[in-house]
Amino acid sequence: MIEGPRLSPGDDVTATLARFLVASRWEDVPAAVRHEARRTVLNSLGAALGGCRDAAVEHAFAVLRRFAGQPEATLIGRAERTDALTAAFLNAASANVLDFDDTHLPTVIHPAAPVIPAVLAMSERMPLTGAQLLHAAILGIEVECRIGNAVSPWHYARGWHITSTCGVIGAAAAVAKLLNLDAERTTWALGIAANQACGLIETLGTMAKSVSVGYAPRNGIVAALLAQQGVTAAPHTIEGARGFVHVMGERPDLAAIGAALGTSWESARNTYKPYPCGIVLHPVIDALLELRATHALRAEAVGRVIVRGNPLLRQRTDRAAPRTGREASVSAQHTVAVCLLYGAAGIAQYRDACVTDPAVQALGARVEVEDDPSIPVGAAVVSVRTVDGRTLTGSVAHALGSLERPMSDAAIEAKVRDLASVGAPSCEVDRLIDAVWAVDRQDDAGVVARLAAARA
Amino acid sequence: MIEGPRLSPGDDVTATLARFLVASRWEDVPAAVRHEARRTVLNSLGAALGGCRDAAVEHAFAVLRRFAGQPEATLIGRAERTDALTAAFLNAASANVLDFDDTHLPTVIHPAAPVIPAVLAMSERMPLTGAQLLHAAILGIEVECRIGNAVSPWHYARGWHITSTCGVIGAAAAVAKLLNLDAERTTWALGIAANQACGLIETLGTMAKSVSVGYAPRNGIVAALLAQQGVTAAPHTIEGARGFVHVMGERPDLAAIGAALGTSWESARNTYKPYPCGIVLHPVIDALLELRATHALRAEAVGRVIVRGNPLLRQRTDRAAPRTGREASVSAQHTVAVCLLYGAAGIAQYRDACVTDPAVQALGARVEVEDDPSIPVGAAVVSVRTVDGRTLTGSVAHALGSLERPMSDAAIEAKVRDLASVGAPSCEVDRLIDAVWAVDRQDDAGVVARLAAARA
Repeated sequence: MIEGPRLSPGDDVTATLARFLVASRWEDVPAAVRHEARRTVLNSLGAALGGCRDAAVEHAFAVLRRFAGQPEATLIGRAERTDALTAAFLNAASANVLDFDDTHLPTVIHPAAPVIPAVLAMSERMPLTGAQLLHAAILGIEVECRIGNAVSPWHYARGWHITSTCGVIGAAAAVAKLLNLDAERTTWALGIAANQACGLIETLGTMAKSVSVGYAPRNGIVAALLAQQGVTAAPHTIEGARGFVHVMGERPDLAAIGAALGTSWESARNTYKPYPCGIVLHPVIDALLELRATHALRAEAVGRVIVRGNPLLRQRTDRAAPRTGREASVSAQHTVAVCLLYGAAGIAQYRDACVTDPAVQALGARVEVEDDPSIPVGAAVVSVRTVDGRTLTGSVAHALGSLERPMSDAAIEAKVRDLASVGAPSCEVDRLIDAVWAVDRQDDAGVVARLAAARA
Repeated sequence: MIEGPRLSPGDDVTATLARFLVASRWEDVPAAVRHEARRTVLNSLGAALGGCRDAAVEHAFAVLRRFAGQPEATLIGRAERTDALTAAFLNAASANVLDFDDTHLPTVIHPAAPVIPAVLAMSERMPLTGAQLLHAAILGIEVECRIGNAVSPWHYARGWHITSTCGVIGAAAAVAKLLNLDAERTTWALGIAANQACGLIETLGTMAKSVSVGYAPRNGIVAALLAQQGVTAAPHTIEGARGFVHVMGERPDLAAIGAALGTSWESARNTYKPYPCGIVLHPVIDALLELRATHALRAEAVGRVIVRGNPLLRQRTDRAAPRTGREASVSAQHTVAVCLLYGAAGIAQYRDACVTDPAVQALGARVEVEDDPSIPVGAAVVSVRTVDGRTLTGSVAHALGSLERPMSDAAIEAKVRDLASVGAPSCEVDRLIDAVWAVDRQDDAGVVARLAAARA
């Protein structure tokens, strides 16, 4: 017999989450939570439009299509169709592969990639309204982030890729809601999904990361359908002695899972990256773009640039001569150079071709990164000494995209257009954006997925 | 940057395993290892023939067939065909669902279920000789059990279902060999698979267990095919600071993975259960069947039965009035009663119908289980007091099916026939048995899978 911690009534979280999922009504979801969810969907679609031609996605499709079923579901940004499970896998990989998706900062979960592709794929298999789709997405992200809260920070520090591990459970929660499962079967769905939780930090920076991210919505859908069919799971698969939070966590905070469910919303605490690079560089970019605009600063006028920040900034980004776009995305030198040269830090500025641009390299060589422990993580101070002897200094306390200074809806739209132009130029992106803002008024939720496809 | 243990040269086990897989030649595999592998294949096919109509398998097929691709691969014991990935999933679930498959005792891995279905499915997709199939199966099991050795006993005790977690890596290793991947791509295959390792002990006793067992060969195949296609993984996904053995193990024994590779074979240390019940009851059954035969003992002559064993035997099996076949499989009372009444402890004796048989219940009520710490785990002493005053005592030091007293080839054949009669009576089991004994002389390995199918 397995010994383990005894459960207090409030610790019965698998059943608590199941009851919450069953009881939740669309009418109970506050308007602000709904709006944040629309932003989450839009940002995720944009990230997938940008990532849908990445080599990891191409390779995975080349393998999975050999075993695929009916072409029932959209591949975001592409013209091919495939079965719903394969589509969910590939769309999640596309959404996350550029590391340009959303972040739930307390857990570092990228909430949308495992959940949104699951509900989109289901919307092409069953009649769903847009409100049902958005409601299920909100609930799936809620479950995902709350379980993440319970096992953080030990879980990620131990080496678990939390987007994958918690994502599969969130996806199952969302699909269980779409299938209208009762509380017992929802418990099974969550349990089957928790039993599939996997993903190692060791793989970050390789294509293998996209495989576990892809499996999260795929296996979440399967978990919910298996539960619907009658596949049982243990009643306490999340909190039991040999369940998710104890096997994959240490001293988990079970209370975090059920606290203020339905009144406090983790899904509304989502954030979006305005720039496709390391998040600690974001305040540096904000400061430089503002200095450049305010002072009509031209690259030729720049002598030296001093970037000051918390020691974490230097540790993560003091990288003098990056060779690839991937390395450049964590290089302060490259980032400063492109901001001053081009007034932008978008997809184009982190391409390999830009990294080897002699003008970028020459300017990057004049950048220094200095520690200042008095500066909080997330802030930065940038000083530009001009060749004519002036010193221009800009300071940013909270970067654009932080919870304190969220991207505007218009900025998210611009990001989506930028990403679509890179990865899926034939996509009717304006119609897609309109459809997402209006998603909860759509009679047929499938319209979103259809508009996210590339034209054949 | 992630900090973690530094690697010594001998600890570079992902690459070590990859080189071993690439270098291994069929000619280098000793005859005894080959023969044990044939026994492993046969036993696993038998277990799958018995389990292929279990509710967990039926439910999973009902869901997965909605998304399945070409009907290219056999479902063991069934007439339907499906795509290779879905077949691998369902065949592994079938092979393991009755808990009547094989056991690598040092790790408690059931080695065949994740690996054999993977190579069988591949044998229906690509030209393979029987020797290639058996060679790949041997290597897959070798990798699976060696990684299991490295993380045992912490891994299982922590709550990991080791058959699933190590099984997916073993399956990837086997398929990488079939695909003739080079060392680098084999490293990726192992890494992608390790990144998919999952399965919680909390789910044992529920149908959800079969889901993670099913995913092991499915995802192992995908891992190898992705690596072939060019999907990269980290070079140290097994041993790295945030890799498999550190995230899912504590103080792993890395040396156990590479020690005497190619000369000492874990795959040859496989064992098979002769009876579909808890393994601690096996010496009790052996003792009773021998007493019954030797003394022409009839149930009516039995007064009381005293079963003595290590305290573990009583703790696991002193269960006076089981209500279901599942409970009866860990009940000494039921087991003693069926041995004395029917001279057998097979599938039929652990059906629900047999558990509620009044004659079985009446005899079971006269059974007592006593502790004797001087008796080792794995042994038992049984005393039968007859109604005419005699005491007949039998003692078994090592049960049939243990490493010390393996099942004979003929006993495995009989087990396979028994299981086939239960789950797949239309299967041509004698032809299947002949094909497995001759597998490494088959020009077309696919013959094994085809003969394992039920006739339509």
